[in-house]
Amino acid sequence: MSGFEGVERRGLMFVLSSPSGAGKTTLTRMLIDEIADLRMSISVTTRPKRPGETEGVDYHFVDQAKFDQMVADGELLEWAKVFDNCYGTPKAPVEHALASGHNVLFDIDWQGAQQLKGQMPTDMVSVFILPPSVQALEQRLHTRAQDSEEVIRGRMKKAGDEMSHFDAYDYIVVNDNIGIAFESVKSILRAEQLKLERQVGMVAFVQKLRQQL
Amino acid sequence: MSGFEGVERRGLMFVLSSPSGAGKTTLTRMLIDEIADLRMSISVTTRPKRPGETEGVDYHFVDQAKFDQMVADGELLEWAKVFDNCYGTPKAPVEHALASGHNVLFDIDWQGAQQLKGQMPTDMVSVFILPPSVQALEQRLHTRAQDSEEVIRGRMKKAGDEMSHFDAYDYIVVNDNIGIAFESVKSILRAEQLKLERQVGMVAFVQKLRQQL
Repeated sequence: MSGFEGVERRGLMFVLSSPSGAGKTTLTRMLIDEIADLRMSISVTTRPKRPGETEGVDYHFVDQAKFDQMVADGELLEWAKVFDNCYGTPKAPVEHALASGHNVLFDIDWQGAQQLKGQMPTDMVSVFILPPSVQALEQRLHTRAQDSEEVIRGRMKKAGDEMSHFDAYDYIVVNDNIGIAFESVKSILRAEQLKLERQVGMVAFVQKLRQQL
Repeated sequence: MSGFEGVERRGLMFVLSSPSGAGKTTLTRMLIDEIADLRMSISVTTRPKRPGETEGVDYHFVDQAKFDQMVADGELLEWAKVFDNCYGTPKAPVEHALASGHNVLFDIDWQGAQQLKGQMPTDMVSVFILPPSVQALEQRLHTRAQDSEEVIRGRMKKAGDEMSHFDAYDYIVVNDNIGIAFESVKSILRAEQLKLERQVGMVAFVQKLRQQL
């Protein structure tokens, strides 16, 4: 938080979504690098650990029985099955972070965002990143990987479907310039922290001020 | 707007209020100086023009009959009588600015803010500025003018009353450091412009993107 520290506050759940190629991954990395007080939500998954991945950093790796138990016990804020693997967001670390005034960043798609919103409507702030043009999207998808023209066509089509969900988000940032888009996303995070309802210690703070007058 | 210009947007009414001595006047001046796309709302008043004041810059100066007519015709968004003089906010220039995507800044008290909110609930964004401590408030009131101890006491008491209305505002900025408070206020303005509902051209923009895919 770049501001006054004398008021107790509740953290927020900061959700970034975008069609692939719009710059979400870059923005996520920039946010985590620059903002000390922002934690990435670590998902739980049944997918096998890949070389180079670390338990508790990339994911929490669990077996199917454990995952099913977490779902049954209401321990996940949202979850999805992608092909044969399950992915989910554990509730407890998020609630702990929010209560202690920390913000949690989520890099999830529109379906995950919708589930989260249903669980924690007032704590969640959602931002959808859009490309400035189809040309820019195509160029980024080309630059990023040595995929075939056909694979890129498929990604573009999928991006179009994802885009249609923009209207479920609180804020929209068109990523025409990564530096400006980053400033925009940071402004949203900073502003949201200044909302009256997130500064949960404000009533006590003003009371104290007035008593001294 | 520091961002993408390719989406039509609606302006917003940016209201700053604070108890005297909390730094609102300084922040207002900094905003007007730095942000080209921000217009100050010019009030209409029945108070006589003072030396150095300019019609249409400081106020629109009108006689009582004209003011009463404006009230009767619903041409004012809010108005108040202070001692023998009337002050009000003309509606037409605000609506014109918002429709053409410009933001309008209001330096008004909590009663004016409440009236504005009643008239334009979705267009208004309100920020309340607080001092970090009673000592800081006292020091600023002392620095500002060669007022007697008694006058300053009176101002402090009034500041306490004004503070009690903090909870009617959307955002609260504690002005502990003017540079940080300015960044906070700018972040709020920038973030609010990125809200989905203010980017009124977003549906058309996404439609166009999707048609090209």
